[in-house]
Amino acid sequence: MPAKIATPDGYLPQKPETLAAYLSGIEAVRRILGGTPEKWTIAEVGDGNLNLVFIVKGPEGGVAVKQALPYVRLVGESWPLPLSRAHFEHMALSEQARLTGNLVPKIHHYDEILALIVMELLEPHIIMRRGMIAGVEYPRFAEDISSFMARTLYFTSDLALTASAKKALIAAFAGNTALCKITEDLIFTDPYRVAELNRWTSPQLDGYAARWREDGDLKVAVSRLKLKFLSSAEAMLHGDLHTGSIMLTTEDTRVIDPEFAFMGPMGFDVGAIMANFLINFFAQDGHEAQPGARESYRAWVLATLEQIMTSFRTKFLQLWRENATGDAYPASLFQGAEGEARLEVERHAYMDRLWADTVGFAAAKMIRRVLGLAHNIDLEWIADPDRRASCEARVLTLARDMMVNSGRYPTIASVTEAARAMRRDMKSY
Amino acid sequence: MPAKIATPDGYLPQKPETLAAYLSGIEAVRRILGGTPEKWTIAEVGDGNLNLVFIVKGPEGGVAVKQALPYVRLVGESWPLPLSRAHFEHMALSEQARLTGNLVPKIHHYDEILALIVMELLEPHIIMRRGMIAGVEYPRFAEDISSFMARTLYFTSDLALTASAKKALIAAFAGNTALCKITEDLIFTDPYRVAELNRWTSPQLDGYAARWREDGDLKVAVSRLKLKFLSSAEAMLHGDLHTGSIMLTTEDTRVIDPEFAFMGPMGFDVGAIMANFLINFFAQDGHEAQPGARESYRAWVLATLEQIMTSFRTKFLQLWRENATGDAYPASLFQGAEGEARLEVERHAYMDRLWADTVGFAAAKMIRRVLGLAHNIDLEWIADPDRRASCEARVLTLARDMMVNSGRYPTIASVTEAARAMRRDMKSY
Repeated sequence: MPAKIATPDGYLPQKPETLAAYLSGIEAVRRILGGTPEKWTIAEVGDGNLNLVFIVKGPEGGVAVKQALPYVRLVGESWPLPLSRAHFEHMALSEQARLTGNLVPKIHHYDEILALIVMELLEPHIIMRRGMIAGVEYPRFAEDISSFMARTLYFTSDLALTASAKKALIAAFAGNTALCKITEDLIFTDPYRVAELNRWTSPQLDGYAARWREDGDLKVAVSRLKLKFLSSAEAMLHGDLHTGSIMLTTEDTRVIDPEFAFMGPMGFDVGAIMANFLINFFAQDGHEAQPGARESYRAWVLATLEQIMTSFRTKFLQLWRENATGDAYPASLFQGAEGEARLEVERHAYMDRLWADTVGFAAAKMIRRVLGLAHNIDLEWIADPDRRASCEARVLTLARDMMVNSGRYPTIASVTEAARAMRRDMKSY
Repeated sequence: MPAKIATPDGYLPQKPETLAAYLSGIEAVRRILGGTPEKWTIAEVGDGNLNLVFIVKGPEGGVAVKQALPYVRLVGESWPLPLSRAHFEHMALSEQARLTGNLVPKIHHYDEILALIVMELLEPHIIMRRGMIAGVEYPRFAEDISSFMARTLYFTSDLALTASAKKALIAAFAGNTALCKITEDLIFTDPYRVAELNRWTSPQLDGYAARWREDGDLKVAVSRLKLKFLSSAEAMLHGDLHTGSIMLTTEDTRVIDPEFAFMGPMGFDVGAIMANFLINFFAQDGHEAQPGARESYRAWVLATLEQIMTSFRTKFLQLWRENATGDAYPASLFQGAEGEARLEVERHAYMDRLWADTVGFAAAKMIRRVLGLAHNIDLEWIADPDRRASCEARVLTLARDMMVNSGRYPTIASVTEAARAMRRDMKSY
């Protein structure tokens, strides 16, 4: 285990009592809450894995407070994790706000020493994953998340930025290594080897876990993805863009928790969304009251996934056509109707390469949710282990093929069709 | 034009008089030179494009002194260039010395304020390009340069480094944007558009220049290479690894001038060596006293190029097998005879991908030396413009095919064979 993290003078993990006093010293926050601190209610509600989260309500309004701990909350002090993740989260949130407007929570206050961010209280938003487990349809989501991804990825890429602005971003996020390391280990490595932190539905999936660990083609494929994650600084990623990092209502979408942000390969973010939709699709069999009860929700999940991917591509391409301000593919090389036509062909080729990455990264994120440390409640909440294992086996089987044979999935329609076929044809684990 | 560069307090461009006083204050240098400053001879000899270079000799020995100017020496104050390039050169030189031992000059002293490096005087070494124009064979070179590339690239890659050590290197070099920008503009952009700085043998090559500027496939191909240069932080590159950055004798090889160093795609360095060998091969027709006089030297150039590329691959692979200490392709995923066999197949696939990059980057470097700002004396010293243009046209034609159809060049033998065929079949521009 790595050494305990030193915290700066003045750092103190907050409790409701200390937090009230602290917040009362911040004019902007006092104005939002209204009244005096005695009138405020403060509840610690963090259900994530890493941090403290408080909801603070006053007579006039509320705020959410997120504070980093010098270790992984879920595990305890034996797994140290630097406070600097709050710095990177704040930087990414600020950048995302600039690029997407109100698709992220508004920041009211940031305290570097306390590693603490005071932000907009999102009400009555819920974590998307919970909504999807309950079978709630979100009609705005495809539109919003495709905009979020297209804008944050496009505008932090070499297509929009000068090389020097891009390298400044790379340097600014280069220190977020501890969080990247979690991804490198838990997504790209551990599920493919014997590792203490791995877990899966056992004994049902023991054979799968063993075969996945012995699958040379799969391990080469995931290692290529890991290499891309390590070395391709394409754009500022959210870095953890699953449905647990989204809070929403049917009318409003917010992306939260970008503490894993860094400059990496775009397909990693896009693939995260795809993976979580596919997992939810396969998990519905474990949640429906009687067979077929969730049929229309399943259709919504896949139709929405198709719409997200199609809209993302359309929007990214449009941003490129309208904001070609970066040093890559300089406009001066593609003048006139002929130049523009040739560039447009290349834009589509670029999106095809990004798509191939997306399929691979999605597959990696699907496998880690079944064989690795961190599972999704989409699957975890299926109480019957046999039923759960059957859902999980489909996730694994589709993901394995997506990763090793990504060329068989040239479009989102080919992915959703394969998911439908997998569910139809593969009856049990 | 960008604004004039501010220099720090204490910065002063050196002259022989000021330099003697300065060096006399450095114990290590005084010991090397011997005697007293009055006994020292100092000559400014810089024949590069960017910096001041002095050779200092004393009764007992000599040193070379390189100082950055706040502008491009070749152009003058109208083209500012930051002094920080001395910082990056010093950092890269130190790292290369650690990794390759005596394949770089020894550093005696570094002064960050003066942007000045005092280093080993290389005697009787000459710039390799001059030796190759004169037809000198260097029997050690293939061995030395393949080691230099294999070791500097391998040990600064994700194959050898942890992700956090690699990101620290990325951050350390992220500020070298002004030098990277020169490459981005002069190699990947200007030769493919109308640009004031472009020049070529005119009118002989006017048609080539026009066709190259209108070639959509070529412009897409070079833009993909530029994107890779901008976004793929694979390893610490020398960044300017042509035969003008090598000083040598038949018995000793030194790589100098790594001020363009940054974390980029490996194929850029390897391709630079290939490009300069191919240019020299084609240039020999302009230097031979009578047709065929340089036939055996031409054979040496291509045989040496083959040996460099073959040895580079062999050495890089061997370093990987023996030093798999990086976070990419973790050993724990490829245990046992079967795992090792699968990984070995992937190692070769990795080298094949690096090779494809190398072919593309080599082509970009060949084209810029004929159509861009900075030409090579290999070609420039051919006095007869028709003869020169014929050599240059072969360089352009082979390079264009290498860049657009890199799949036709799966091995170094296919490149050298194409070069021989081009020279045989293409009689004139």
